[in-house]
Amino acid sequence: MTGAAGNSEDRSAGADPFPARSTGEDRLLRRILDVLPAPPGEGGEEVPHLILGPGDDAAAFAWPGGGTLLLTADAAEEGVHFDRSLHPLRAIGRRAVAAAVSDIAAMGGRPAGALVSLVAPPSEELAAARIAEAAGERAAELGAPLVGGNITAGERIGLHVAVAGTGAPGAPLLRRSGAKPGDGLFVTGELGGAALGLALLRRRTEGGTTCLDSAEEALVARQLDPAPRLEAGAALAGAAHAGMDLSDGLALDLHRLAAASGVGASVEAARVPLAGTGARGLEAALFGGEDYELLIAGPPQAVIAAAGTAGIRVTRIGRVTAAGEGIRLERAGRGAEPLPRRGWDSWAGR
Amino acid sequence: MTGAAGNSEDRSAGADPFPARSTGEDRLLRRILDVLPAPPGEGGEEVPHLILGPGDDAAAFAWPGGGTLLLTADAAEEGVHFDRSLHPLRAIGRRAVAAAVSDIAAMGGRPAGALVSLVAPPSEELAAARIAEAAGERAAELGAPLVGGNITAGERIGLHVAVAGTGAPGAPLLRRSGAKPGDGLFVTGELGGAALGLALLRRRTEGGTTCLDSAEEALVARQLDPAPRLEAGAALAGAAHAGMDLSDGLALDLHRLAAASGVGASVEAARVPLAGTGARGLEAALFGGEDYELLIAGPPQAVIAAAGTAGIRVTRIGRVTAAGEGIRLERAGRGAEPLPRRGWDSWAGR
Repeated sequence: MTGAAGNSEDRSAGADPFPARSTGEDRLLRRILDVLPAPPGEGGEEVPHLILGPGDDAAAFAWPGGGTLLLTADAAEEGVHFDRSLHPLRAIGRRAVAAAVSDIAAMGGRPAGALVSLVAPPSEELAAARIAEAAGERAAELGAPLVGGNITAGERIGLHVAVAGTGAPGAPLLRRSGAKPGDGLFVTGELGGAALGLALLRRRTEGGTTCLDSAEEALVARQLDPAPRLEAGAALAGAAHAGMDLSDGLALDLHRLAAASGVGASVEAARVPLAGTGARGLEAALFGGEDYELLIAGPPQAVIAAAGTAGIRVTRIGRVTAAGEGIRLERAGRGAEPLPRRGWDSWAGR
Repeated sequence: MTGAAGNSEDRSAGADPFPARSTGEDRLLRRILDVLPAPPGEGGEEVPHLILGPGDDAAAFAWPGGGTLLLTADAAEEGVHFDRSLHPLRAIGRRAVAAAVSDIAAMGGRPAGALVSLVAPPSEELAAARIAEAAGERAAELGAPLVGGNITAGERIGLHVAVAGTGAPGAPLLRRSGAKPGDGLFVTGELGGAALGLALLRRRTEGGTTCLDSAEEALVARQLDPAPRLEAGAALAGAAHAGMDLSDGLALDLHRLAAASGVGASVEAARVPLAGTGARGLEAALFGGEDYELLIAGPPQAVIAAAGTAGIRVTRIGRVTAAGEGIRLERAGRGAEPLPRRGWDSWAGR
């Protein structure tokens, strides 16, 4: 959400660090996917055949002879996903790779390798090299070694990261579809930290040097160096009915999961594990994005048991309901209200 | 090479449609690859392990249980790889996909699926949709259905295409390394057509409407809608010692293949199959780029036999020599001279 000014009508002006956005990216993607040729059916023994096409966190192919190939791509564009006055070069490379690998975590999979396509002004060769180096470092840490890529001259810095991986052996893919009314809704970790960290970075840059305490430093780290939840995805894939990663805020991503599953959902505000505090902490969790925690729907006992066995922290934040009930937020003393379908949207947000 | 002005010293000024370029992209990539962490070794039965890392046309992994996974990515940036005053939206989408799939052809492989990461100004949603649609159409034609992607707001249009594929069953990968002194040098098809087609598009745009004859239309088609040589790569992989696709002109790409193989090479100018005629046709073949034909080194009889069996047109253009002999061009009446290491280079060429 860096460097972008919200254009929706329901946002407050000025210093709001979580500008509301419409969902132009979803709309445009849907229009394009509608006109794509249908993927081929099974192509015989020798050819990987598509079992999950566009619309989930990653595409999946059944590999001839066994196993599942996962493919995903993510972009980080200067002035949209990062701001060089706020994000160090090293962070630009590391977070772009983490965001793409998070799509593999969101399927319950394991990364195998990554490709980076980098755009940078020719006059900034040194900056491009440092970003690429940081991307390679983070890719190796995450088990997705950088195996190729290219550098192209362009006006602004942009990174496009593609990752290939494999599905968790013996477990189904963690898809966005499959959530059922009665399922529990869970998230890993704490939400809102990345957006609050971005707000702290802005404050520090605009207001000159500011001392940050250790809690604030932790929020900044969530923004600059996010961690994809690979262990959690692999541990929960077998127990969950549906799941995805939280890249664009709980509100928008929950709308997406519910739409893919054909269900409604109800979130209890008081249960959402917050990286920050109070109303601002909840705003950041719902609409801030870039947390890369996982959103999971499934039978409560099975999800809690799988998380316990693997030592993964999950928090039950609500429940899956019938489609007709919509997506709701329940607050103490205020009852249930519709949870707006808004969050981090690079396409419409500028 | 679109829209780019060469900056090398050995180019002539003005209307030269094939500006010489230094090889800044190679240099920068090498610097980055030098600092990448070493890829892991074999990771056990469950994990694809890397058998060919950065530096070839695609990376390759041995898939657990059998088969080879190929991964590659390519970029098409406005003002560098295409020019909207010359390239229709449909061509922008189609050629970006073809260029990436050509890297799979260059390994002797078969594509399985593609991802497109698209950057476009939010005000140009319709143009972005048409480009993405054309990319999806071409991807499906080439057996690499578009299985995912994203759209990001940016200043200029850019496409980043990643393709996954499989190695040819029963044949070794067609690598850049492996050419041996005494091998024949071969190319598929005719060279220089894409660069000559670009020059014709420029002339038509700058000079107002110009009628093109059918031969000229064929050159324009080579620029706007290139065809990766998937059949040729698969047919020749078993017979060749080394190979790659010709994306940046015969001269620069031959230097790359020779460097990867640790050999020299000698090309007979009169044998190079030209899409155009005369000195200009040869210039375009050597330095023009974007032809996406294949360059093959191997035992002459085996290569010719494999091509004949598959009905693939190959032309012997020279021979592989010892490393100390360098990369040479032999011309009738002029003897052998060094073939400059220059061609299409987006990084240094602007």
